[in-house]
Amino acid sequence: MPPVRTVRELVDAVAQLSGGQLPARLEGDPALVLSGVAPLESAGAAELAFLANPRYRDQARHSGAGAIVLTEAEHAALFPQGRSGGAAIVCGAPYAWFAWAAQALAPPSGFAPGRAASAVVAADAQVDPAACIDERAVVQSGAVVGAGAWIGPGCVLGPGSRVGEATRLHGGVHLAQGCSIGRRGIVHAGAVIGADGFGFAPFQGRWVKIPQTGCVQIGDDVEIGANTTIDRGSAGDTVIGDGVKIDNQVQIAHNVHIGAHSAIAACAGIAGSAVIGDRCQIGGAAMINGHLRIADGAVIGPGSFVSRSLAEADFYSGVFPIMRNRDWERNAALLRHLVELRERVRRLEKRAGATAPDNPPSEENP
Amino acid sequence: MPPVRTVRELVDAVAQLSGGQLPARLEGDPALVLSGVAPLESAGAAELAFLANPRYRDQARHSGAGAIVLTEAEHAALFPQGRSGGAAIVCGAPYAWFAWAAQALAPPSGFAPGRAASAVVAADAQVDPAACIDERAVVQSGAVVGAGAWIGPGCVLGPGSRVGEATRLHGGVHLAQGCSIGRRGIVHAGAVIGADGFGFAPFQGRWVKIPQTGCVQIGDDVEIGANTTIDRGSAGDTVIGDGVKIDNQVQIAHNVHIGAHSAIAACAGIAGSAVIGDRCQIGGAAMINGHLRIADGAVIGPGSFVSRSLAEADFYSGVFPIMRNRDWERNAALLRHLVELRERVRRLEKRAGATAPDNPPSEENP
Amino acid sequence: MPPVRTVRELVDAVAQLSGGQLPARLEGDPALVLSGVAPLESAGAAELAFLANPRYRDQARHSGAGAIVLTEAEHAALFPQGRSGGAAIVCGAPYAWFAWAAQALAPPSGFAPGRAASAVVAADAQVDPAACIDERAVVQSGAVVGAGAWIGPGCVLGPGSRVGEATRLHGGVHLAQGCSIGRRGIVHAGAVIGADGFGFAPFQGRWVKIPQTGCVQIGDDVEIGANTTIDRGSAGDTVIGDGVKIDNQVQIAHNVHIGAHSAIAACAGIAGSAVIGDRCQIGGAAMINGHLRIADGAVIGPGSFVSRSLAEADFYSGVFPIMRNRDWERNAALLRHLVELRERVRRLEKRAGATAPDNPPSEENP
Repeated sequence: MPPVRTVRELVDAVAQLSGGQLPARLEGDPALVLSGVAPLESAGAAELAFLANPRYRDQARHSGAGAIVLTEAEHAALFPQGRSGGAAIVCGAPYAWFAWAAQALAPPSGFAPGRAASAVVAADAQVDPAACIDERAVVQSGAVVGAGAWIGPGCVLGPGSRVGEATRLHGGVHLAQGCSIGRRGIVHAGAVIGADGFGFAPFQGRWVKIPQTGCVQIGDDVEIGANTTIDRGSAGDTVIGDGVKIDNQVQIAHNVHIGAHSAIAACAGIAGSAVIGDRCQIGGAAMINGHLRIADGAVIGPGSFVSRSLAEADFYSGVFPIMRNRDWERNAALLRHLVELRERVRRLEKRAGATAPDNPPSEENP
Repeated sequence: MPPVRTVRELVDAVAQLSGGQLPARLEGDPALVLSGVAPLESAGAAELAFLANPRYRDQARHSGAGAIVLTEAEHAALFPQGRSGGAAIVCGAPYAWFAWAAQALAPPSGFAPGRAASAVVAADAQVDPAACIDERAVVQSGAVVGAGAWIGPGCVLGPGSRVGEATRLHGGVHLAQGCSIGRRGIVHAGAVIGADGFGFAPFQGRWVKIPQTGCVQIGDDVEIGANTTIDRGSAGDTVIGDGVKIDNQVQIAHNVHIGAHSAIAACAGIAGSAVIGDRCQIGGAAMINGHLRIADGAVIGPGSFVSRSLAEADFYSGVFPIMRNRDWERNAALLRHLVELRERVRRLEKRAGATAPDNPPSEENP
Repeated sequence: MPPVRTVRELVDAVAQLSGGQLPARLEGDPALVLSGVAPLESAGAAELAFLANPRYRDQARHSGAGAIVLTEAEHAALFPQGRSGGAAIVCGAPYAWFAWAAQALAPPSGFAPGRAASAVVAADAQVDPAACIDERAVVQSGAVVGAGAWIGPGCVLGPGSRVGEATRLHGGVHLAQGCSIGRRGIVHAGAVIGADGFGFAPFQGRWVKIPQTGCVQIGDDVEIGANTTIDRGSAGDTVIGDGVKIDNQVQIAHNVHIGAHSAIAACAGIAGSAVIGDRCQIGGAAMINGHLRIADGAVIGPGSFVSRSLAEADFYSGVFPIMRNRDWERNAALLRHLVELRERVRRLEKRAGATAPDNPPSEENP
């Protein structure tokens, strides 16, 4: 897609990128030329901004943005006579519209089809002529690279691995033997896909390695962050569903399944054989124990440790609150003795002759 | 070792791999051909499965596995007349036996001795002719690589570093100047061994770097996960004992010592100069503060933060329990005020005339 | 700077390294030859040791170190007649003096200006002749590399990126398009600077990528640890101030700003748009939520999760204390029911007729 110039062209580009699912109405001069995006308060006459949160209405009202994308309701409230200072783009999901517009306005990625002279490509690898194998990349025996894919500098595609059409691997990505990623994916630098899972049998005080013979299967439209690791399955595969977005330094252990369109923020870890539902959101540095199931749509707060399956879609948290160290020292010390504190309360209740009405049923009474 | 074919050959292979320490009795047709391993419930006539947990007895009873490895006691309970549906392998440690069998059944690793044309090997490096220096690897001055070692694509062996016999470094591993790993090790892609430890002296509001002049010494039979980092010592060395298994994205700081056969799960971190005993198990994302000592055999639960030395082998935990966010908000807020709650209980006790018998000695009373 | 030989030369070297800000008085034979540094208890006649903590006075008194650096006060207390066993170096900040001395005594780094034959350098890259482009490094179009810089084996400098004078990038570092690092920096192996930030707009159950068009700007004298990731800004830049020290496996998200001379220990994570002040200290594995502000000089304990802005310089903590698992199970279970426990105390207070004097105002009463 060529870089767009006018707001009319931008509207058409977003319609195409969204598959026609986000119609928008353009108000204002269709020939207005836009060159980029910016926040409401700083956007200039050649920039696009968006309003998705009512808190920023005032900024929208006074914004110098060439165009603002916003909902019909906000438009009616803010600009009942139309937006005099520039164009308005009215649609049902301004933030998503803005995201696609920003994609359309972004400079095209800079690679061209072909193979760098410094790349090493096995004779029996199947590389589409419309793919780019960049400097020093290594494509091993039987690997398959689709049209429009970019294998960045220093990447290693193991034997029999597969990269789908239009998927981009930034520098230094390792995709191990037999692992695959679908179409339109993005993998950032240093990610390792398909290292061995961590599986050992104990024997007489030492560990016997269990060969990890599964692979990693990654769907379409998946993004994987820098230095993230996704281990191959021990026997079956580790599976990442379509549309999953994974941030930097995430660890996904062997045999994990992640449902479609889930998002996992940086530094999170998912232990072996956990099954994450569709459309889950896992906060940064959250950790999920092995062999658990997380319901579709569950949201896990950042920093939380998930030690049990979560059967319902809800928002879950579990972090120690931050406090001044002197307060922490006293409160944390007492935390080690909650059982005694509860006993003291029980004794007081008994002494006071507390009866059932005063003593409601509680999960805390084992 | 050639790939095994018959269950008889497999029994012999495991005897060899285990150094004769895990004898097994084969019941059934020794000519039965096995091609791989599988779980009890899905294994077919050419696959090996194992029973190590009584919970899966029923699966074992009805399994279609060509061979099942299990204990004498389980065999007697499940198959008093012998296993009619296939072979049985009876031994004292079925899971370990299974692990070695899976090794014997796994396809051989695909590298051959020699140097790729794209590799860069210093003239004074000592590379055994039976080692493989793979595509684009760099072996710097004075590095030593033993027989049967594999230096994967894009690895960098720093000056004077050493890789022992039969050790395999997957792609993109960095082993820095003067660092060493012993025999039969496995290092997964992206691991960095021997980066500088984090050492600075404060001076007038800024930091003065303390050169890190130690190295990293890694024993035999060690496995290191993808993107794990092990820092060089500040003066003495960072030391990883024999048989230690380290998962992905683990951080091991300068001057740490890890005792033999300890296992460290993914995303764990061990701060500077901590000393971990032999045969410890450290759960995923657990963090161990600097300058602590962890007793031999201690087990640290996943997600725990270890802020003090642990002098006894026990199972330790320390994570905030996961809960619905609305419950978390209320409970976490109270957690900040445990001291006040304890005071209220004390006042009630005083008012009630609580005496010593009702008020047992407790660590919580400072 | 040539390797120093005598203690007199060392004193001069530290004076130069410290910019004359840390004067020292040498007592003893100026011709004493020193070859390295060591701890007080093990240092020999050719080694330098330091005393910064009064706890180690006895070690200093009996140390065999060729030279000891210490304060005037310690010198007067320990060696009122002068140090008979060797030299003494007296200054106001012994640990910082020791750090610079260790730098002066360290062997010089081993690279020479020039380009390895296996490196790939774009025709329009601007590489200073006094820089070293090491084996298999890739320097892309328009990248700028200053004098005395070292681009280690396998590094990738993206289009238009900039590396300042005397900055050293260890192997496999990725510096993405348009990102820059200043002078005298050190970046350890596997660090990824400038991967896309994690930004998506939700739309009908899936995620629409928001292009990340900002860059990463890193100041002078910054150290970045192995496998650390610093994301490019979404629109503006991610900014790392002068003198910042970042350990291994740290994650810094898009649009974060880190003030000068802050230090961040390993495995810490800083979420998007957080603003960290100057001279902060962030402990290992600490996590800071997005869009927060941390005051200049704040200290955050290791393992803490920071969920709110910290407006004052103080020492903050927030970790669950480690305990034996059986104690954890009971205490953690009660932690889920603090609200009920507080209610029981309230009922007891009410029943006891507790009045205001017994019931002080408390934040815990909402």
